[in-house]
Amino acid sequence: MGSTFGTLFRVSTFGESHGGALGGVVEGCPPGLTLDLDAVQAELDRRRPGQSALTTMRGETDTVEVLSGLFEGRTLGTSIGFVVRNHDADPRAYAPFADRYRPSHADFTYDARYGERAWAGGGRASARETVARVAAGAIARQVLASLGPVEVVAWVDTVQDLTSTVDSATVTAAAVDATPVRCPDASAAAAMEARIKQVRSQGDSVGGIVRCVARGVPAGLGDPVFDKLEADLAKAMLSLPAAKGFEVGSGFAGTRMTGLQHNDVFVPDATRGIATATNRSGGIQGGISNGMPIELAVAFKPVATVFHAQDTVDTAGRATTLTPRGRHDPCVLPRAVPMVEAMMCLVLVDHWLRWRGQVGAPPPVPLRG
Amino acid sequence: MGSTFGTLFRVSTFGESHGGALGGVVEGCPPGLTLDLDAVQAELDRRRPGQSALTTMRGETDTVEVLSGLFEGRTLGTSIGFVVRNHDADPRAYAPFADRYRPSHADFTYDARYGERAWAGGGRASARETVARVAAGAIARQVLASLGPVEVVAWVDTVQDLTSTVDSATVTAAAVDATPVRCPDASAAAAMEARIKQVRSQGDSVGGIVRCVARGVPAGLGDPVFDKLEADLAKAMLSLPAAKGFEVGSGFAGTRMTGLQHNDVFVPDATRGIATATNRSGGIQGGISNGMPIELAVAFKPVATVFHAQDTVDTAGRATTLTPRGRHDPCVLPRAVPMVEAMMCLVLVDHWLRWRGQVGAPPPVPLRG
Amino acid sequence: MGSTFGTLFRVSTFGESHGGALGGVVEGCPPGLTLDLDAVQAELDRRRPGQSALTTMRGETDTVEVLSGLFEGRTLGTSIGFVVRNHDADPRAYAPFADRYRPSHADFTYDARYGERAWAGGGRASARETVARVAAGAIARQVLASLGPVEVVAWVDTVQDLTSTVDSATVTAAAVDATPVRCPDASAAAAMEARIKQVRSQGDSVGGIVRCVARGVPAGLGDPVFDKLEADLAKAMLSLPAAKGFEVGSGFAGTRMTGLQHNDVFVPDATRGIATATNRSGGIQGGISNGMPIELAVAFKPVATVFHAQDTVDTAGRATTLTPRGRHDPCVLPRAVPMVEAMMCLVLVDHWLRWRGQVGAPPPVPLRG
Amino acid sequence: MGSTFGTLFRVSTFGESHGGALGGVVEGCPPGLTLDLDAVQAELDRRRPGQSALTTMRGETDTVEVLSGLFEGRTLGTSIGFVVRNHDADPRAYAPFADRYRPSHADFTYDARYGERAWAGGGRASARETVARVAAGAIARQVLASLGPVEVVAWVDTVQDLTSTVDSATVTAAAVDATPVRCPDASAAAAMEARIKQVRSQGDSVGGIVRCVARGVPAGLGDPVFDKLEADLAKAMLSLPAAKGFEVGSGFAGTRMTGLQHNDVFVPDATRGIATATNRSGGIQGGISNGMPIELAVAFKPVATVFHAQDTVDTAGRATTLTPRGRHDPCVLPRAVPMVEAMMCLVLVDHWLRWRGQVGAPPPVPLRG
Repeated sequence: MGSTFGTLFRVSTFGESHGGALGGVVEGCPPGLTLDLDAVQAELDRRRPGQSALTTMRGETDTVEVLSGLFEGRTLGTSIGFVVRNHDADPRAYAPFADRYRPSHADFTYDARYGERAWAGGGRASARETVARVAAGAIARQVLASLGPVEVVAWVDTVQDLTSTVDSATVTAAAVDATPVRCPDASAAAAMEARIKQVRSQGDSVGGIVRCVARGVPAGLGDPVFDKLEADLAKAMLSLPAAKGFEVGSGFAGTRMTGLQHNDVFVPDATRGIATATNRSGGIQGGISNGMPIELAVAFKPVATVFHAQDTVDTAGRATTLTPRGRHDPCVLPRAVPMVEAMMCLVLVDHWLRWRGQVGAPPPVPLRG
Repeated sequence: MGSTFGTLFRVSTFGESHGGALGGVVEGCPPGLTLDLDAVQAELDRRRPGQSALTTMRGETDTVEVLSGLFEGRTLGTSIGFVVRNHDADPRAYAPFADRYRPSHADFTYDARYGERAWAGGGRASARETVARVAAGAIARQVLASLGPVEVVAWVDTVQDLTSTVDSATVTAAAVDATPVRCPDASAAAAMEARIKQVRSQGDSVGGIVRCVARGVPAGLGDPVFDKLEADLAKAMLSLPAAKGFEVGSGFAGTRMTGLQHNDVFVPDATRGIATATNRSGGIQGGISNGMPIELAVAFKPVATVFHAQDTVDTAGRATTLTPRGRHDPCVLPRAVPMVEAMMCLVLVDHWLRWRGQVGAPPPVPLRG
Repeated sequence: MGSTFGTLFRVSTFGESHGGALGGVVEGCPPGLTLDLDAVQAELDRRRPGQSALTTMRGETDTVEVLSGLFEGRTLGTSIGFVVRNHDADPRAYAPFADRYRPSHADFTYDARYGERAWAGGGRASARETVARVAAGAIARQVLASLGPVEVVAWVDTVQDLTSTVDSATVTAAAVDATPVRCPDASAAAAMEARIKQVRSQGDSVGGIVRCVARGVPAGLGDPVFDKLEADLAKAMLSLPAAKGFEVGSGFAGTRMTGLQHNDVFVPDATRGIATATNRSGGIQGGISNGMPIELAVAFKPVATVFHAQDTVDTAGRATTLTPRGRHDPCVLPRAVPMVEAMMCLVLVDHWLRWRGQVGAPPPVPLRG
Repeated sequence: MGSTFGTLFRVSTFGESHGGALGGVVEGCPPGLTLDLDAVQAELDRRRPGQSALTTMRGETDTVEVLSGLFEGRTLGTSIGFVVRNHDADPRAYAPFADRYRPSHADFTYDARYGERAWAGGGRASARETVARVAAGAIARQVLASLGPVEVVAWVDTVQDLTSTVDSATVTAAAVDATPVRCPDASAAAAMEARIKQVRSQGDSVGGIVRCVARGVPAGLGDPVFDKLEADLAKAMLSLPAAKGFEVGSGFAGTRMTGLQHNDVFVPDATRGIATATNRSGGIQGGISNGMPIELAVAFKPVATVFHAQDTVDTAGRATTLTPRGRHDPCVLPRAVPMVEAMMCLVLVDHWLRWRGQVGAPPPVPLRG
């Protein structure tokens, strides 16, 4: 059951790192949408390994094939099946891990959970599973565009201790993709790139923070009390490989302010009717979007594969050591950007359809943005 | 739909702050459990307003009445219905907010979402809804205890900039409840209490961070790729009122380490078979518990109700001002402790039953904790 | 989990026959609906025991209390909690069944499923649980009325071998409720009433068939391939106590026709744009409503409680005999009528909201009814 | 959403009759099962067109390719993706139906539901979608076999007015598959085969009834009150193409009996501990299996495609006529047999896992079968 995400707009995914293919089924897509398959492929290309010197050298074209749900280029409203074949699967490098648990990987926990494990490349636990999310998210992004002028942009905010300065109100996908590290602050990007190359040369790895903004989301999305918009976003983001933290709006820093400092006062607004003077709420209040940009951050730990000998145990519980091999990114951040955007799009579309189902026409709030 | 949480162990809740009652339906409870209703009431008492000078003065006994699902003191396995009546509902103080949006509250967004709003006390958006979660969580805690020797303890880690030192390996509920602020570091607790009284006297409010540990959780809980244990925990926590951030294990701080620094190496362990030398993973790897303590943190923003005049708009979009009234906590942290524990218990039980459903007997991993 | 029904419009119910109360939580109700609580009570009154000489003499007012989800008489869009207290619970008559399994009751299977059983009055297996469905269905009926001019009418079609003649195109609720047996064919109703009294006097019981029509349902409801409208209706009806069969449209009789005889040819229609000349499809084709009346039938077995000594076994597996006591209907059919209508309404509203969520505005089919 | 079936054991399917492929994702499969892919293929072969003179001549090998979820031949416990390519798709014969609605097909209702329609071969509404169900059901059958000695056998019980005599206690799959019509009563089978050939020669079609038995199901499966075992079976069967009716146990005929005649008295039983002397309950009481064979029947209408001119309307609502072309079965019954079995297996596995999740070890009922 854990490979399904969403309620009305829903994706079920499959695939291991070194299996035959990855893919999924997207259900609930509104019918009549002219689906741009090149745009879907473009998102996969952003996620693809081997894009730059910063990423793993595994060679995959990650070509998506849509098998159903389209007719004459338009969505039928019925389920969309798609597959992405693995071509460069090479399990040989992973044979030493068949009986030894790599530290901070999911080898041990998959054994504990299932008693079975595809040890090649991490199997289902590999970040390669995100191929299917990114494809589904790219469809979701097109649905979003058909519903309203929504822009979803993520970027690398920090790598280790290197921070950047980015204006969430104006940042563009083009600016993000202008550097291989996907940080739109050029000088920060250069430092980040140097850092990543440095740790790679040391056989080490680094983590960091991705930020994401969704601009143009109308007020009214979210389903309290459990399916609050920030709750579903938190789940979406923490389901990404290597994610360890989530913030919306002021996040942890906001806990240091007083209420009087933190509150976002409402002001009349010429274009959206109502707005808030600040956006510490991150575009969500009480679990529902308020028409301001949705702003969130996701912490990604450093990649667990480091090319040094590490202590561990084997599957019989005996102490041993292990020196990883295989092809790995020294830093997942650049490739996490399209993943974060995909999850944001999936959540927003699902809630938009849920809201439309329950309420139908927009509610009679004169001030809605 | 948004008032339902969980898959196999599931609660559906209802209730507004100033309506007739709060309550819910718990489904999927294992049968044959002798349910300690006093223990359920005790958790509600921990969440109850009016416990100390730090909390709202609303007078409610929050007495839970179980209406079904029990027979001769034991759970039947069928749905458990329960209600908690409101007694001290007093909407009068809220009349000024019927047509004016309180800053950083959910008044505006509920109007945007539904076009209807119970303006008294925040209605469904009030933290009073957590009565139903805490009751359900108290049932979940008893189910957990029947499944294994699991301990779930949360505490107030910070209030604003005031931090504490607490050992997650040994902290007890008794130590947490020993101070009204629910911080088991006595000197920090004293400072926090003073701070909360200070901001209350200023008509202001503060936020902070709650930490939670679950000790004794076996390896193997979690359902990748979307229903990873940390993903469901993140959703659970971000669904709490005023929550703005979530961390598991090393969280945001972990992004500043290298992989070599961050990795938790595996070591043989006399009692649990296998363990990790450190626990930066927070007890979860690849979305599945690894047998080490599950450790997480939740950021709560300062309470939005501050007793100062603030700019805002009315429901017609015109600029106005508003001075809040009503009964409110100056700091939700002490009362958030049982809420965080409740959500932790709900997630753990649900995943435990899901795991048992799919796998049946524990999987043949000799090293499982 | 089994006490929840529906996806977007969803009810979770609780309650045993001789417990404290029955009730539930309705989620997904569109906001802004002026809910007529008298109409909800009226449906419960139709289901209530003790209405006539044909039904059980248990004395219950079945008064519904709505605890949340309403404000100033209108639905808030958030969850609606409701309870119906048991007043005439009297477990004493059931004590002999605490350790003996009544034939064709659920005593044995509840023990097998849960290892626990509320033996008084059947516990959760009692038809008394339908109180909660009927209340939820009465809310659904009002939602339906707000969405379109839909009429849902059920009636008793047969009792044992006694058949009736009823025109589904014109039958009204008033005609149905004009006789205690709820058969709008007056002469058939008289015979049925006599038959029920006769079997009651013999300590025996009878079953029969309820038919139901939903007129005014637009074309387009249903979600192939698994959530076909007829599939969800079949589930809804077979979830009713004592239901053993389901037909939509031509049902089993249709299997005796050839395709040429069976097909419903399409014809232009002045009022609905398109219609079918016959309605063997029962208003549903390929899992989706076609704008014609939805017509279905549900078979109810004879009540299992008969006041004769019957062979059985005790909970230790030893042969014994048992002579039922307690208060029971000799025929569930008259009271099944509001239950069938309730389930029809629940399914139709759920699919209507699902359709609206996915498609939004009605699709551009010029011929839609 | 409508293309997903099941809760813990779940399949999401995709595919149109003349699209690129059919397939699906199976979630929740227990890990460690050695999956016999030949057995999966064998079930698809039973469903495949072109098996005999009784079925459509479309030439498809329906070769299944499993893309994930297996490692070294065993299930991983994570999602199983599979595809079956279409090879003999030939939309040309369907071009006349692009703008004319075939009577009693889903052409009109898909337009009403989605505003889009894959007119070739019925698109998603084609019975060809059952390829994916049958593949998933074949996996479920193997899971069932790993859980207990369960046998699921379906057969053609009637074709039009031609009935058969089959002993549900002993009927075998081999006997069923011994005749092309899949009726294990040889003389009835001969008559049915002759009838089908006769109506085919007349360009007409026939329907009939499939019966199915599941022997060896333990007592205790089912989740009242809404997810009763018979309710989920009814939904499963009514979701099949052309299904119009469902019965469990005594079904509609049982409504003609009195309670005293109908009741299944319990008797001690040497092998199963407890049994019933008769099985009018069809193996299910109160929504839960009782250890007796589960027996059900499904009515299938005559195939809608008949090779005669019929009145209809075009997509603009104008009266016209239509003479079907394309490749169609004159009777779906023989190929419906594996479909019914697949749905039975899917429901049983799902409830088995749900029961195991909630209850864990079998409940302490000494008499369980």
